[in-house]
Amino acid sequence: MSLFVMKFGGSSVGSAERIMRVAERIIEKKEEGHQCVVVVSAMGDTTDELIDLSRQLSDQPPAREMDMLLTTGEQMSISLLSIALHAKGHEAVSYTGWQAGMTTDATHAKAKITDIQPQRVLDSLEAGKIVVVAGFQGISKDGEITTLGRGGSDTTAVAIAAAIKADACEIYTDVDGVYSTDPRIVKVARKLVEISYDEMLELANLGAAVLHPRAVEYAKHYQVPLVVRSSFTYNEGTLVKEDAVMEQGIAVRGIAYDKNVARISLIGVPDQPGVLAKVFGSLAEQSIDVDIIVQSGITSEKTNFSFTVSLTDLEKALAVVASIKDAVPYDEVSSETNLVKVSIVGAGMVSNPGVAAKMFDVISQQGISIKMVSTSEIKCSCVIDQEKLTEVILALHSAYGLDTNQTAFVGGPKDRR
Amino acid sequence: MSLFVMKFGGSSVGSAERIMRVAERIIEKKEEGHQCVVVVSAMGDTTDELIDLSRQLSDQPPAREMDMLLTTGEQMSISLLSIALHAKGHEAVSYTGWQAGMTTDATHAKAKITDIQPQRVLDSLEAGKIVVVAGFQGISKDGEITTLGRGGSDTTAVAIAAAIKADACEIYTDVDGVYSTDPRIVKVARKLVEISYDEMLELANLGAAVLHPRAVEYAKHYQVPLVVRSSFTYNEGTLVKEDAVMEQGIAVRGIAYDKNVARISLIGVPDQPGVLAKVFGSLAEQSIDVDIIVQSGITSEKTNFSFTVSLTDLEKALAVVASIKDAVPYDEVSSETNLVKVSIVGAGMVSNPGVAAKMFDVISQQGISIKMVSTSEIKCSCVIDQEKLTEVILALHSAYGLDTNQTAFVGGPKDRR
Repeated sequence: MSLFVMKFGGSSVGSAERIMRVAERIIEKKEEGHQCVVVVSAMGDTTDELIDLSRQLSDQPPAREMDMLLTTGEQMSISLLSIALHAKGHEAVSYTGWQAGMTTDATHAKAKITDIQPQRVLDSLEAGKIVVVAGFQGISKDGEITTLGRGGSDTTAVAIAAAIKADACEIYTDVDGVYSTDPRIVKVARKLVEISYDEMLELANLGAAVLHPRAVEYAKHYQVPLVVRSSFTYNEGTLVKEDAVMEQGIAVRGIAYDKNVARISLIGVPDQPGVLAKVFGSLAEQSIDVDIIVQSGITSEKTNFSFTVSLTDLEKALAVVASIKDAVPYDEVSSETNLVKVSIVGAGMVSNPGVAAKMFDVISQQGISIKMVSTSEIKCSCVIDQEKLTEVILALHSAYGLDTNQTAFVGGPKDRR
Repeated sequence: MSLFVMKFGGSSVGSAERIMRVAERIIEKKEEGHQCVVVVSAMGDTTDELIDLSRQLSDQPPAREMDMLLTTGEQMSISLLSIALHAKGHEAVSYTGWQAGMTTDATHAKAKITDIQPQRVLDSLEAGKIVVVAGFQGISKDGEITTLGRGGSDTTAVAIAAAIKADACEIYTDVDGVYSTDPRIVKVARKLVEISYDEMLELANLGAAVLHPRAVEYAKHYQVPLVVRSSFTYNEGTLVKEDAVMEQGIAVRGIAYDKNVARISLIGVPDQPGVLAKVFGSLAEQSIDVDIIVQSGITSEKTNFSFTVSLTDLEKALAVVASIKDAVPYDEVSSETNLVKVSIVGAGMVSNPGVAAKMFDVISQQGISIKMVSTSEIKCSCVIDQEKLTEVILALHSAYGLDTNQTAFVGGPKDRR
């Protein structure tokens, strides 16, 4: 008997019919002799509908009240799923975030979990019940209802799995695993059998939407084995764990891309101490995340530098840059959009020095210019024109031996491990 | 400065626009210098929609999970109303039942309030905020979410008013007060300026839907002055209190009717000890409420008796009667539907012995036969054919001097007090 946390997203419980299907899926697991804690998100479009309703009342609803509003979405799903499980003859009990002991800090809309006291969950498991827990929500120590922000239900699932020492946390979603890259672009993208936490974290941060980075971080911290798999099929999913085995001869695990990127360049900035700190300090004060930063000297007195921000932050960032012109008297500022950041990720890169060089080579062979570069031990990112995305991804995927028709993949999933 | 509890029902908060209007209403009260605790029900059809959703999953959803599901309705309303109040520049804070300290027993779907610890409500009032509390819901001492059953939001409002020692509890609804009888039947029905708890309790029990009997009982127990008034107009409402002044020369406060009534008659029942106990004990075991009971002897050995049950319980009651034929060997059983129970209610009846007699007189003058009668100190009920309802109500209303064009009502509301 194993103890599983199973997390189902909003589209998996988007209608009565789908809730019934999810119930069946859970019952199969239970009838295999396992204990099940299920974490669910709000049904389909519920959250968006609630947000719409609030917007009819206010442009700036208080975060506390939005948390009060949005947490009803998961409370509906947990009760409906429990009702479905009962209808199919299984004892089930639903718990809201606070009932499940999910304590968070008091930062509404993006609270962080500070403690979990899962006694009720454990008692109900002990009593043979299926436990259904509301994702995304918690309670502050002052008894305020909070939400965990984006990706919150994944985080809830992982956190509960850690707290109750589950054997695995299964994330059921509308794709059947983590792919080497976006299968909508690369038809021969491969589903990964395994991936390490670090690699998954990079992929998630770099644009792969299948798991939220916070959930992966949490899983890594508590060493919770994660499985990403489909709600709709029985295909084997992808296992996320500490030391994922690399397929032979392959240094790159996956290729991610992110279109939410814009470049700002400051030309002719006085080469003085504190200038960079002033620029990026001012951006940070406005909660603008800066990603890649590239500096290049032109004369001994002046320098140029470029940096990327989210496309959605561009206007705000340009306003900040304009506002500090007195303190940082640059000659010129320019910005560029229609960009994409393409990243290769793989734990093997650290021991294979040629991996990043190959990326530059492949891209330049396509006659495409690389605008910015950023590297870490397990990833390399290049910013290029968005219109070149498809050809670059296809070329990289093939060059790193990731296409499913390439020889590295002869054999079934087990052979590949 | 007074402290008010204001309760708004589901139709008053049925849309964003209506929520805005309710917010304005509350702000007016606040700007008059009062403190406000607002209790709201779920928006319009939300509860019915949630019930529908659950029925798609199960014919018999567990009561615990239904409570979990249905309480989301009020949680939505409280957050949306608080957002609206904020949008209009007023500090407001919403509390679920458990946050407001509404402790109940563990009887899901019809929990009883056992204790209220309104510290958070009081603290927020102290801080100058408008407090918005979810009606209908509470928490058991084991941390289970419960609902109070029908009329629950009225009960929440009265209970909180009692706990925080509010000066009054105002029930805002879609009618502008308590009427002497149903204004849809009697165009000259009068809105009552005052009514006593006992009278209101009888009227509510006898079919007047404007307030739930439990809320009235609670108000009486804690001596909370209740005001029933319109959400949509500024008309003066009806004050429910201990000693309501009676208009001069009028012994009856109001006339109620209830069509949810059916009669069962047992003919030729052995006149032995224990027979009645057997019949009504068996009905009680099946949770069937019996209202009026009339017994009449025919011979020395056998007796007949009739009793009324809710129309909705008729089939179930007949089955119970059939099942006890061995223990109670009656000759015959019959049942009758298309009935209505008409009741006059008034604290003045106790000191005016002719009031009930007048009722029988008025009805018989219409050539209508009275099938059953039941009286108490402050009410008299007659069961008649449903098709005679309108003419009987009109005749009684006029006979007791209740029509607004009758002389007892010359003068404005203040003169009538």
